[in-house]
Amino acid sequence: MRTDRLQALADGVFAIALTLLVLELPAPAHDTTDLAADLVHAWPFYAAYVVSFVTLGIVWVNHHRLMDAVARADRTLLELNLLLLLFVGLVPWPTGLLAEHLRDHTQSSAAAVTYGVVMTLMSGTFTVIWLRLTHRSSLLRDTDRSTLRRAVRRSAIGPIAYAISTGIAVVSAPVAFALFALTAVFFAVSGRGDAPALPDA
Amino acid sequence: MRTDRLQALADGVFAIALTLLVLELPAPAHDTTDLAADLVHAWPFYAAYVVSFVTLGIVWVNHHRLMDAVARADRTLLELNLLLLLFVGLVPWPTGLLAEHLRDHTQSSAAAVTYGVVMTLMSGTFTVIWLRLTHRSSLLRDTDRSTLRRAVRRSAIGPIAYAISTGIAVVSAPVAFALFALTAVFFAVSGRGDAPALPDA
Amino acid sequence: MRTDRLQALADGVFAIALTLLVLELPAPAHDTTDLAADLVHAWPFYAAYVVSFVTLGIVWVNHHRLMDAVARADRTLLELNLLLLLFVGLVPWPTGLLAEHLRDHTQSSAAAVTYGVVMTLMSGTFTVIWLRLTHRSSLLRDTDRSTLRRAVRRSAIGPIAYAISTGIAVVSAPVAFALFALTAVFFAVSGRGDAPALPDA
Amino acid sequence: MRTDRLQALADGVFAIALTLLVLELPAPAHDTTDLAADLVHAWPFYAAYVVSFVTLGIVWVNHHRLMDAVARADRTLLELNLLLLLFVGLVPWPTGLLAEHLRDHTQSSAAAVTYGVVMTLMSGTFTVIWLRLTHRSSLLRDTDRSTLRRAVRRSAIGPIAYAISTGIAVVSAPVAFALFALTAVFFAVSGRGDAPALPDA
Repeated sequence: MRTDRLQALADGVFAIALTLLVLELPAPAHDTTDLAADLVHAWPFYAAYVVSFVTLGIVWVNHHRLMDAVARADRTLLELNLLLLLFVGLVPWPTGLLAEHLRDHTQSSAAAVTYGVVMTLMSGTFTVIWLRLTHRSSLLRDTDRSTLRRAVRRSAIGPIAYAISTGIAVVSAPVAFALFALTAVFFAVSGRGDAPALPDA
Repeated sequence: MRTDRLQALADGVFAIALTLLVLELPAPAHDTTDLAADLVHAWPFYAAYVVSFVTLGIVWVNHHRLMDAVARADRTLLELNLLLLLFVGLVPWPTGLLAEHLRDHTQSSAAAVTYGVVMTLMSGTFTVIWLRLTHRSSLLRDTDRSTLRRAVRRSAIGPIAYAISTGIAVVSAPVAFALFALTAVFFAVSGRGDAPALPDA
Repeated sequence: MRTDRLQALADGVFAIALTLLVLELPAPAHDTTDLAADLVHAWPFYAAYVVSFVTLGIVWVNHHRLMDAVARADRTLLELNLLLLLFVGLVPWPTGLLAEHLRDHTQSSAAAVTYGVVMTLMSGTFTVIWLRLTHRSSLLRDTDRSTLRRAVRRSAIGPIAYAISTGIAVVSAPVAFALFALTAVFFAVSGRGDAPALPDA
Repeated sequence: MRTDRLQALADGVFAIALTLLVLELPAPAHDTTDLAADLVHAWPFYAAYVVSFVTLGIVWVNHHRLMDAVARADRTLLELNLLLLLFVGLVPWPTGLLAEHLRDHTQSSAAAVTYGVVMTLMSGTFTVIWLRLTHRSSLLRDTDRSTLRRAVRRSAIGPIAYAISTGIAVVSAPVAFALFALTAVFFAVSGRGDAPALPDA
């Protein structure tokens, strides 16, 4: 399996998961008597759309960076990538769930925990892929050891942050949701230094 | 991040957003007693489908033209592109909303304003990308200054036209909808002169 | 606009329209007391799925053959292609409509006419693209005149067959549906001779 | 038809079918009084999502391996591939059906049989493609006879396993579902030896 083909499937799944998020947005009843109020009231859906879109966008950027470091893909790497895509494709579902129940104080924890579990599994799979590469450096291009170790460490922040947020979600879904958003912002900001302008192919 | 990869994701998101528009079309009840009348009555959905499809089609054409001018993508350009895709992926939602409520005189304004806001943000992000390129001409291929300035000016017509239409939507949704359609027609017609026949790669 | 980019968008829209057809399949009620009977009873949905999938598959094959003949794309060709994609993306909707109402003798005509109109417009746009190419032979690769004339004639069978079927749909939806299926079979069978085994790139 | 284009469409259909599986996941009622219990109770949906995702992932891997062996595509190969995609695109539907009815002892067999029939047809089409290639070895790259015979034999395990599972589904849907999962695991594990690390293009 050449890595360019794996990237083609991955690009497809990312593009579709990003775009399917829109199907979670609410459709106010045809006979509503105050559409403006309905739309304003639906703000958790917009917030969840933005947080999930940004999160998936960052994972897509990082996935490309990872693939750029890989020279050859063995079967295990292929399977780990399909596992990552399994969680990527799942994201629209907990996004809608969390938006739907965020303001129901008695039920929001279950939704936020679900969101957190999916994100923990997705980012955890990402870290496992980096760890695997540190043990199979023959699969890599000329990436030096220290760059690799830094990539593993940085990617491990994801599952740790999501696991903690998921724990907090048991107590407070809104706080957990804020942490999900902050994790996305952290990766967006901290990733800036790592991406020098690259010449286009 | 090479620009060809960014284009692959963008092409995916555009293709999916264009095709998801179809899910907004109405499904008359199974036991309807006058399907023909139901289908004719659903005309705002067809009009909204066409306007959004044409608009997204034009943005796709312009996005490719923009990317053709770019030699290298830095992190900011990458993030602005993901922001553009965030709004592109959103388009099916206000499209369905506007079609659903266009003939409800008391509620249509809220739907048209929502449509206008999404379009203003989408086209505004596009203009910001062009502006960014004028300040980072090192990212560009050999585009001359005057071509660039013309591109910025032309792209600025989008957010201005949409912002005005959104203001008008507060008063009249049908007039705003006509302006959304006219904006698409304007860009389709005015763009004709800018696209000389290019040799295929 | 290079034709390879247009093809990338077209491939995306075709792949998505083909796959969105599945969303039109029925979901029997959770508390149904005879799921097997419900599934058998839903046969028009399977028939419509197959007919629309095969039809879109053939249009995709023919679209690639058309693009292979084109050396350069001008603005009109680009716009005609986007118009074709507008109808391609629409196909899942009349497919679900026709399946839903095929057995309602009083309402099925409206659904079949809708299906026929979309198909007539889609195949008609295809013919217009071929006609345009006969008048702009500078856009073509070294295709000889007689091959071109044959392609135009063959593609004209589509809109003619669909227009006639749409007329018949006013009287009988099931007969029209059989004609839609036969048209797909005709193009599948008649196209066989035109596709010599080509070396892979 | 060059095989790289057929692969582009196939990659698109696989990516979309994989990602549309998420739309089958349940959306608990907004006013549920025990969301956590609702989510736990929905476990058949998660199990079905994973089984179908893994199955489609394996078929995608095998489809790429098949295409790598093909040097040229003739019309019959093209049509068989579109037939394969017809069944691939269908998978989300029986997945949702099986998850929805798995615990309804009186109706689950109909759902499991439907799932099994789709999988039998999908994997059977795959075997037919391999068989076709053994009779048209001119379409192949330098694959030796014994490798080819092994590929046909291995691919025939799919339709046989699914046909048997479908028969068992008449008696017990849960047992059949376990067999569907085991078939996916078998192909994932047994395929490992066949995929040497390949250099990336």
